[in-house]
Amino acid sequence: MEKKLYHCAAYYPELWDETFIRSDIEHMKKIGINCVRMAEFAWHFMEPEQDKIDVSFFVRVADILYENGIDSIICTPTPTPPIWITHDHPERLIVTNKGEHYIHGGRQHVCSNDAFVRERSYIIVEALAKAFANHPGVIAWQIDNEMKANNCMCQSCRRLWHKWLKDRYGTIEDLNEKWGTEVWSQAYNSFDQVVQPFVNREAHNPSLLTEYTRFSRQTLNEYAFAQADIIRKYSTAPITHDIYSGFHIDSEGLFNYLDFTSMNGYTGDDGFNKWLFDFDFYRGIRSDGRFFVTETSPNYAGAILGVGRPHRDGFLEIEALASYASGGFGFSYWHFKQHRCGSELPHGSLLSAWNKPTTGYFQAQKVEKMRKTVEKAFLSTTHEKPQIAITYSEMAREFYETEPILEGKSYFDHMFNLHNCMQNAGLNKDLLPEGAPLDDYKLLFTPFLPYVSDDFLNKAIDFVKNGGTWLIGPMTGSRGEYHTVNTDCCLGKIEQTAGVSVELYHPFSGTGAYLEAFGISAPAFLHGGALRATDSRSLGRISGGLSEGYSFLTEKSMGKGKVVLLSVMPNMFEQAGRELITRLIDHYAIGAGVSNRYRASNGTAVICRSGEGEFKRVITVINGTDREGWYELDDDAISLFSGAVCPKGICKLAPFGYDVLVVKK
Amino acid sequence: MEKKLYHCAAYYPELWDETFIRSDIEHMKKIGINCVRMAEFAWHFMEPEQDKIDVSFFVRVADILYENGIDSIICTPTPTPPIWITHDHPERLIVTNKGEHYIHGGRQHVCSNDAFVRERSYIIVEALAKAFANHPGVIAWQIDNEMKANNCMCQSCRRLWHKWLKDRYGTIEDLNEKWGTEVWSQAYNSFDQVVQPFVNREAHNPSLLTEYTRFSRQTLNEYAFAQADIIRKYSTAPITHDIYSGFHIDSEGLFNYLDFTSMNGYTGDDGFNKWLFDFDFYRGIRSDGRFFVTETSPNYAGAILGVGRPHRDGFLEIEALASYASGGFGFSYWHFKQHRCGSELPHGSLLSAWNKPTTGYFQAQKVEKMRKTVEKAFLSTTHEKPQIAITYSEMAREFYETEPILEGKSYFDHMFNLHNCMQNAGLNKDLLPEGAPLDDYKLLFTPFLPYVSDDFLNKAIDFVKNGGTWLIGPMTGSRGEYHTVNTDCCLGKIEQTAGVSVELYHPFSGTGAYLEAFGISAPAFLHGGALRATDSRSLGRISGGLSEGYSFLTEKSMGKGKVVLLSVMPNMFEQAGRELITRLIDHYAIGAGVSNRYRASNGTAVICRSGEGEFKRVITVINGTDREGWYELDDDAISLFSGAVCPKGICKLAPFGYDVLVVKK
Amino acid sequence: MEKKLYHCAAYYPELWDETFIRSDIEHMKKIGINCVRMAEFAWHFMEPEQDKIDVSFFVRVADILYENGIDSIICTPTPTPPIWITHDHPERLIVTNKGEHYIHGGRQHVCSNDAFVRERSYIIVEALAKAFANHPGVIAWQIDNEMKANNCMCQSCRRLWHKWLKDRYGTIEDLNEKWGTEVWSQAYNSFDQVVQPFVNREAHNPSLLTEYTRFSRQTLNEYAFAQADIIRKYSTAPITHDIYSGFHIDSEGLFNYLDFTSMNGYTGDDGFNKWLFDFDFYRGIRSDGRFFVTETSPNYAGAILGVGRPHRDGFLEIEALASYASGGFGFSYWHFKQHRCGSELPHGSLLSAWNKPTTGYFQAQKVEKMRKTVEKAFLSTTHEKPQIAITYSEMAREFYETEPILEGKSYFDHMFNLHNCMQNAGLNKDLLPEGAPLDDYKLLFTPFLPYVSDDFLNKAIDFVKNGGTWLIGPMTGSRGEYHTVNTDCCLGKIEQTAGVSVELYHPFSGTGAYLEAFGISAPAFLHGGALRATDSRSLGRISGGLSEGYSFLTEKSMGKGKVVLLSVMPNMFEQAGRELITRLIDHYAIGAGVSNRYRASNGTAVICRSGEGEFKRVITVINGTDREGWYELDDDAISLFSGAVCPKGICKLAPFGYDVLVVKK
Repeated sequence: MEKKLYHCAAYYPELWDETFIRSDIEHMKKIGINCVRMAEFAWHFMEPEQDKIDVSFFVRVADILYENGIDSIICTPTPTPPIWITHDHPERLIVTNKGEHYIHGGRQHVCSNDAFVRERSYIIVEALAKAFANHPGVIAWQIDNEMKANNCMCQSCRRLWHKWLKDRYGTIEDLNEKWGTEVWSQAYNSFDQVVQPFVNREAHNPSLLTEYTRFSRQTLNEYAFAQADIIRKYSTAPITHDIYSGFHIDSEGLFNYLDFTSMNGYTGDDGFNKWLFDFDFYRGIRSDGRFFVTETSPNYAGAILGVGRPHRDGFLEIEALASYASGGFGFSYWHFKQHRCGSELPHGSLLSAWNKPTTGYFQAQKVEKMRKTVEKAFLSTTHEKPQIAITYSEMAREFYETEPILEGKSYFDHMFNLHNCMQNAGLNKDLLPEGAPLDDYKLLFTPFLPYVSDDFLNKAIDFVKNGGTWLIGPMTGSRGEYHTVNTDCCLGKIEQTAGVSVELYHPFSGTGAYLEAFGISAPAFLHGGALRATDSRSLGRISGGLSEGYSFLTEKSMGKGKVVLLSVMPNMFEQAGRELITRLIDHYAIGAGVSNRYRASNGTAVICRSGEGEFKRVITVINGTDREGWYELDDDAISLFSGAVCPKGICKLAPFGYDVLVVKK
Repeated sequence: MEKKLYHCAAYYPELWDETFIRSDIEHMKKIGINCVRMAEFAWHFMEPEQDKIDVSFFVRVADILYENGIDSIICTPTPTPPIWITHDHPERLIVTNKGEHYIHGGRQHVCSNDAFVRERSYIIVEALAKAFANHPGVIAWQIDNEMKANNCMCQSCRRLWHKWLKDRYGTIEDLNEKWGTEVWSQAYNSFDQVVQPFVNREAHNPSLLTEYTRFSRQTLNEYAFAQADIIRKYSTAPITHDIYSGFHIDSEGLFNYLDFTSMNGYTGDDGFNKWLFDFDFYRGIRSDGRFFVTETSPNYAGAILGVGRPHRDGFLEIEALASYASGGFGFSYWHFKQHRCGSELPHGSLLSAWNKPTTGYFQAQKVEKMRKTVEKAFLSTTHEKPQIAITYSEMAREFYETEPILEGKSYFDHMFNLHNCMQNAGLNKDLLPEGAPLDDYKLLFTPFLPYVSDDFLNKAIDFVKNGGTWLIGPMTGSRGEYHTVNTDCCLGKIEQTAGVSVELYHPFSGTGAYLEAFGISAPAFLHGGALRATDSRSLGRISGGLSEGYSFLTEKSMGKGKVVLLSVMPNMFEQAGRELITRLIDHYAIGAGVSNRYRASNGTAVICRSGEGEFKRVITVINGTDREGWYELDDDAISLFSGAVCPKGICKLAPFGYDVLVVKK
Repeated sequence: MEKKLYHCAAYYPELWDETFIRSDIEHMKKIGINCVRMAEFAWHFMEPEQDKIDVSFFVRVADILYENGIDSIICTPTPTPPIWITHDHPERLIVTNKGEHYIHGGRQHVCSNDAFVRERSYIIVEALAKAFANHPGVIAWQIDNEMKANNCMCQSCRRLWHKWLKDRYGTIEDLNEKWGTEVWSQAYNSFDQVVQPFVNREAHNPSLLTEYTRFSRQTLNEYAFAQADIIRKYSTAPITHDIYSGFHIDSEGLFNYLDFTSMNGYTGDDGFNKWLFDFDFYRGIRSDGRFFVTETSPNYAGAILGVGRPHRDGFLEIEALASYASGGFGFSYWHFKQHRCGSELPHGSLLSAWNKPTTGYFQAQKVEKMRKTVEKAFLSTTHEKPQIAITYSEMAREFYETEPILEGKSYFDHMFNLHNCMQNAGLNKDLLPEGAPLDDYKLLFTPFLPYVSDDFLNKAIDFVKNGGTWLIGPMTGSRGEYHTVNTDCCLGKIEQTAGVSVELYHPFSGTGAYLEAFGISAPAFLHGGALRATDSRSLGRISGGLSEGYSFLTEKSMGKGKVVLLSVMPNMFEQAGRELITRLIDHYAIGAGVSNRYRASNGTAVICRSGEGEFKRVITVINGTDREGWYELDDDAISLFSGAVCPKGICKLAPFGYDVLVVKK
């Protein structure tokens, strides 16, 4: 696929008179769109009545596009089942944890665990796969749209849930033991008695809640995998899914079964760092260093229940540039032409419903100009592999959904805050899912990971023995697989691994405790452990509060590397807390020999690519703020945009300004 | 009816021992009550068991009242169906969009689209109509109480909904085309598949939502019309309904079928302008310049879930005076005597449940004194017909309920804000429903009207050709009848009418755009269009933001008049925005030759009446604020209250002070 | 029981390997735990399948504990019914007023009005009672856990509700008359038509709401009484229930049937005054001057949905000391060992799930040291009987739940505010339920009591005739038994009793009215009555607002005592309001000859005990604030902690400091 940087838009020709296709293509060419996404919501159009299937329209559109030099990504239409699937069949609808069900009139209102829904989904996917089997314009497939694990409570889910539990536990006694159901007399005598966690006056057992989430995530992925299997029978084009990072889903499992990673993102002008976070995560999932931005608005998001603020002039360019520089090989708008109807009618687009260019049209033309300028340099290089990995676990996020003990913030909030600290410290990093290999990293940071599997632990220990530094963060190891508390010691195997004994474990906020290390004293917050260094060296001391004098930071040598435990979190919402975290990570990044770092003003991203070709290095600099910024060059470089030579040293960057600088070999 | 200004109270004699009637009447006389409203919640009292009907009690009470010089308004008791209607019949209850149903124990808990409910309603109405057929004391009828279009989701509504759609669209293909249901594969194969818009995870199609609202409004009116038809078989007394302006209902359709307009209003001391808004609207609905205030509290509103603050001494007088001066021919309290039980037991009243005068009693006596002072002057004059009309569309309000894109404010909020600007500018105006004739106006202002029907457009064009000035406001014309977006051009026929082309259309808030006209520069907000004046003259320019340099204000001559388009709204929540709007309206009011204007301090209302009799003009001045105010007289006048001569020029008015000044011929 | 001060913890040995029991007991001894609470959530453990009952495990544990000098309180396990009670039996689940039902997976999810639930509850209780019939270690029984009147809407409740109404009213006509159901045509033709008050669009009749609450409270108590009756067949140990003061329940009725009063309380460091309030209430319910603190956390409360902040070092000691000093004969932690699973796994405890001491462990050791120091002095004395009683009516609270007219605050909020005023004024007082005898008091204060029963009125009048002062507060007498308004006069028999006529009754907030008495002028708030003193003397005058010149404070002599009526409330959320209230109570406390008062800084509690033994008086002083405080001693005294002599006069007290001072005879 990567002969070009894709510049793409979602296209719904089925909603318009066919005569528009020619003029639409003219507009695409004027903007520079070289690929479209199609068909994701068109199930009724393809199969208005059961078994009356005809997908030829989309083949015809893809033909015309291809003739005009525009590729296609074909999407399966399963998010929007036609009325004949649900009319008179309420049992196929998703049931919420309040016992309410969704209905026809939105999308993704049916339960993908329902047998009929699955059967009909696979039939329409197969029809589409057959029709596009060898189409030369089809560069990729997309499964469904922004899937989410719904924790559906329907009767189909109930039956599958009981089967899933039986397969997983074997005996009900084993489930009772692992979940600790004697608490509050919740024990079950058979699998078919196990409740679905509908909303209750009292909180459910966390084992039940977390396991139901696992069940929902796994069965959703099975549905996606089955679609991929069908497509693969007919087509060799790679398969993806357009994930939205706010939804609950096992994206690690999903993308490792599919062929490449894609993401949708919608932020305002203040959201540049959120993009960087997402790029660092979606790039890393499959360890292939690439991803596709499947959706973003060319100007503003919107639906009848709310419309966003338009981006300022030029913001779209820095979104696209940051994406391409960070490993994105495609950047796609939602959507080409404004809907004339339906709940998303006020959403931003390139063309208006009356076929006039919008504010987004002109912004996208600027993007295209930028894209052309950088394409050659970017295609001949790849994003420089980070030497720092932060464990970002979607399963950890689910644990904190079950047990929201992060003081009003989410797992994402805290991880985003940490990512920002590291971003500002000029560190190039990946956000790694738990299953990813650690081979090429030097420093691994694993905070807030309640359950540490043996697989993960062993991989991390191997990483350390081979010379890596593993910085274990607070709460990591504090829960078991089934969302219970350890009974041997507070943090399970983490304690022995880190060479510590947790003497006290409790919430630190409001206790007056301070964390002292590196000459900094920062207030403590969240749950944490007061340590005794048994087989390690203490590097930080708790002062004040209920754990006065204990350690919160230890270091232990292991093989060629080090295990460091930060057992209490400095409050990152205060300056001293951010400083302590930054110093700590900095210290171990230096110690671990991390080399790819940069210096720049806060909010200015420096993204480096390198490769075998003409350029030694391609340095993208972007100021994501409305204040003037700066960055420092280590070598003289040439701006791809101005052609000017930038001598090494400090360079200024205007608010929301950017540049791409190449260092020749 | 208009031989007097009515001073009235709601009366529930059925709740008390009959012996109280005589003493109640004594109190009424002491206060000056000359009319009562009766029977609206007494269905069980009249028909405790099905078909066991006896309404003679109310006839007897009306007789006694009449003997004592007190008229009656008889209300149909349909808001409160007895237990035998719903016991064991849950299918007759209203179902909400969350699938919950109401139950016996409140009021208006049954669906007026249910066949049995309708049948029994009409039977009891007929019994009442017969009994009061020729009663000399009955001056009017009231249908039900504060009706609201419930968007009920019951099975009766489901059946009627499908029938309503079939009657309206003919074929399902037509519905699918008009609603654009291919979006998200929502298309229907038959009418009986069309869902009712229960709450869903995703927003419903706006066409579905807006049409369901139309359906609910229309069928509710049918129910009211049927009641009116029955009454008319027996009685010639005029029929009304007591509307509450906060509820959803097609009041234009309703009151044009009934015989006069009535409204209920409850505000605190800070709500004087809300009264003026309501008077300007309810006076105009039937183009007869009159209305009745059917309910307001003599001191404070209240129910067990909350009690309002008592009005300050004298506030009730200015409510009543403003009402009478503005075209109100009746002013009625809710209610005469405090309930001893039920959910409204803490509500303010004239008499307490233990038969003592309340704070409201003494206030009402002051009202009576005022009423007597002004009655002769008011009866010999009528409210001066405004020359400015503002289109106030209840259907527009429904569009914005479906699609709330007014940045956290409601349609009412924005219209109220505009009304206040015009109030402060001293402009006498009507708030006109879409169907009202425009013959007698000089300036028509139509902002925020998403769907402009051909009927309305043609009427407005005729108005312009005959010399009127039509000031079209932002968003007007931006949606079609079925809540879709236009596909020919942004604002449909408005563009040609105004002689413009909308080049860009987008949200303006937060984009840094300013609107420049009349030497004022005001921040833009809400959605709006950037114009190119094709067949018109630009009078205002957008500076900054994404539409820099385009026009937002154009003027075009047509026939003897002008079409003006204000395509982007200045932010009325900031001073510069209010100034720009005020200047704009002022400019066109002057240009259109609007003559009935006044000068007064902000918050001081000047309400003029004139007629054929003794007085050239009767000028009511009311300071609705707690600050000293002033007004300017064009002629010498005499105060009806003090008898003093007020020479022309500036006069002061105390906080919450008032006066009525007559200019003799 | 009272040979010792109990120091206790909740213990769940059934959740752990039996081998832990020995080491657990060692820890208990190290801390000083001399009693445990057991078995409250262990129904499934005792009866995993229907009729397969075995409670011997708990007998065995109690045996071992007893051998080690540790007593037991045995709890009935009825809050946590096993799965076989509800699987396939949704009809046994509690139904909320939204029509939702709870499910297995929490606790107290079944309706205790269901016949099967009752039958099975009584069977398991009897098995437990038999097994522990003569156990020497069992010092008490506990019924269920933190029961709450649920206002359940299930079908069993529906049937019992109709029966309850029939028993209470006899005829439906009587119910209709008492509830005033002709309002809104709500009248019923038979008892089986009477609705349960599910949530409705409109508020229900307050008579219905308040009566349903009465029904729910009474039937819940019946369930508890039946459990007590069963236990009493086998055991002579006293029976209690651990109430949580936030829940709805008739605790007066409950504890008068049981044998002693217990309460659970969880506050943060800022909640010291809440403890004092609870002690003053729970001590007084049975007029025996004693209570048991059944639950509090040794460090912080918590569940998966939220964790509290840990107490500061030493706060646990002042909670325990205040409890023992105020009449508490037991102080118990929840819980001994952290759960390893279930929804309360993050809750504070003495031991962690991995068997290490927690922060709470060390705090509890400090408590034990304190307890030993005071035990002898406390066991030889009793809490000095207050001479002031404040009526604290849980039924009043229910009236205000039905009709929340306290301006955004609850009945508790206002009563707590008043209690704080009196606390700061150094007054020793009881919060008395309506049924308690008044014999030993001098001043009775009865504010905010909507319904005054004849029994209560007659008792209060007797109290006055015998020399007492009855200070009647605002709103008292304003509602009838069935939550209606009086029709003879505003406050019913209160008016004659106080020798007044209420001339106007209305909300006072925002009206500009001030209350003038004792040289203080304070803003008025809430509903109140403007008085004419008919057979009394006015002591306070309303100035401004709508009731200018009327009285709000009257005094009338009756027999040897006085009736005082405070008919409008000064705003206690403002300084002048608190001053007026304090002066008023102070004035009548002095007048009534109240002698047991003290002087201390705001927030410092002085709690006095006296008795027949060695000590004339035992004075506990506790500073519940983070500021330095002081108290004044009337005699020289000796500190039990330091042994030092404290001369009479002013003494300082550190933030959160305490002392116990004995005055020898």
